[in-house]
Amino acid sequence: MKTLIIGAGGMIGRKLAAALPKDELILHDVVPFEGASVVSDLSAPGEAEKLVASRPQLIFHLAAIVSGEAEADFEKGYRVNLDGTRRLFEAIRKENYNPRVVFTSSIAVFGAPFPEAIGDEFLNAPLTSYGTQKAIGELLLSDYSRRGIFDGIGIRLPTVCVRPGKPNKAASGFFSGIIREPLAGQAAVLPVPESVRHWFASPRAAIAFLLHASKINTDQLGTRRNLSMPGISATVGEQIEALRKVAGEKAARLVRREPDATITRIVEGWPRNFDAKRALALGFRADQSFEQIIRIHIEDEMRADELGRSPAPQPGRG
Amino acid sequence: MKTLIIGAGGMIGRKLAAALPKDELILHDVVPFEGASVVSDLSAPGEAEKLVASRPQLIFHLAAIVSGEAEADFEKGYRVNLDGTRRLFEAIRKENYNPRVVFTSSIAVFGAPFPEAIGDEFLNAPLTSYGTQKAIGELLLSDYSRRGIFDGIGIRLPTVCVRPGKPNKAASGFFSGIIREPLAGQAAVLPVPESVRHWFASPRAAIAFLLHASKINTDQLGTRRNLSMPGISATVGEQIEALRKVAGEKAARLVRREPDATITRIVEGWPRNFDAKRALALGFRADQSFEQIIRIHIEDEMRADELGRSPAPQPGRG
Repeated sequence: MKTLIIGAGGMIGRKLAAALPKDELILHDVVPFEGASVVSDLSAPGEAEKLVASRPQLIFHLAAIVSGEAEADFEKGYRVNLDGTRRLFEAIRKENYNPRVVFTSSIAVFGAPFPEAIGDEFLNAPLTSYGTQKAIGELLLSDYSRRGIFDGIGIRLPTVCVRPGKPNKAASGFFSGIIREPLAGQAAVLPVPESVRHWFASPRAAIAFLLHASKINTDQLGTRRNLSMPGISATVGEQIEALRKVAGEKAARLVRREPDATITRIVEGWPRNFDAKRALALGFRADQSFEQIIRIHIEDEMRADELGRSPAPQPGRG
Repeated sequence: MKTLIIGAGGMIGRKLAAALPKDELILHDVVPFEGASVVSDLSAPGEAEKLVASRPQLIFHLAAIVSGEAEADFEKGYRVNLDGTRRLFEAIRKENYNPRVVFTSSIAVFGAPFPEAIGDEFLNAPLTSYGTQKAIGELLLSDYSRRGIFDGIGIRLPTVCVRPGKPNKAASGFFSGIIREPLAGQAAVLPVPESVRHWFASPRAAIAFLLHASKINTDQLGTRRNLSMPGISATVGEQIEALRKVAGEKAARLVRREPDATITRIVEGWPRNFDAKRALALGFRADQSFEQIIRIHIEDEMRADELGRSPAPQPGRG
């Protein structure tokens, strides 16, 4: 099946492309990357039309300006995250061929105050422009699907952890950093109290969500096309305890507490826990534990010589 | 205070203008009407900028393509209801002066299945393009307010009843028609079962909501800027019973049951009842009963000679 991945150059996009048959894959991003089929700005007039002209029956729309940048650059965030998405949806409408569209939304569509666990009927009250743009994308996806323009499904990804690669400046970066750096024998800064709770999925689980969403019978969704994905709810203290179990006391000691009031305040507005009933009933599956999330990172991202720098991991169970 | 009403030519707009001091009022609509200050298409490039160039400190944004037309004409609905609203918000951002913006949203942002009463944390899952466009307007209003671009408040109006004027073809038209026509001695068609429950406010209550929203201290709203207004939940049977009490048996007998499966199916997706806690706590007040809603129509809309055609109303208590 001809498949288009928009935003294929990012971490999730690359892993998704690797999990799909190569022969009918169109890989798009705004920045050049190895294996790219098309490099263009989705939000520029006419570009979305070109992308769907060959009528890919399956479209993954992963492209977005991330949270921090969309907050810092109001116009860029709205142009890419809202106008880009709308241009894509409009191009499909004009091409008139009803493909499956899998849209990555985010738990950033939710804003505090929260119930103990966010259920499937909780309101979208985002506290960032990024969350606002994703929530609008969800509404458009539902309306275009209801009208039969395409067959859409939006999945709200938990914070993906452990993100491979270098530390970045995203406010959420430390959730991965406090695992990734100690596993590689490096120190990592923890800017929030250990009591902070958050919602996680491994990159492997995120890819499985996307693939499942591409195949699901959407008749089961009715008119509500956007789903909170299942995940692991863990406190930072529980993350560190899992690190200790997997990689030993020496690794856990590499986490340095350096409280940052600004980051703590931002993180307090983020979702902590979900009751993802609908997604579970539809067959989406979370990781089994935060320990498993760490083992997945070791298996998928680390070479034996990198591990050598930290205490030897115990045998994986994940 | 310089006040701009966008959509001032409609039923609510005219009543609102009549309730405000005339000297600093700018009345805008896309269609010419008596007393109009500006006639233009808000969704056309440059028009929103002209409207806010004089920096009105208070803006009521009432303009919209209504539900039926937005469903029938996809492009027009999105152009006016989404692009028009966004152009207005962007024009205010560029003018950079932080006015109060009162946005009329709608209970159409909600879609079945519903809880017994829709609370303040229930999700927006609209079942029409109109509801989708209003829900997007709400999200934009919250984000622009959070960023200090303007001081916004969105109010979700119940179905306004009794709408004065002639019967129209809106699917919801019968809710007013079964009261308005019998009061004037005319027959009215009821296309749904008497068990259908819906959520109502009089035009007088709707104007009071708008005026209260224009004066409220928005610090009390926090980041959640959109509120479901209080109203009266009544079944069609209860509507007819109130008509009987106010105008007698002869009026009630003018309601003709002609079941229409299409209208019944549409109406089944509409909200029936709300628990509008936040709005009540903030001082928004509903009508007291459906009987009062009927008496308001008689007092505000009917001349003595019109009433003469129907049985004499009993003394009002509302």
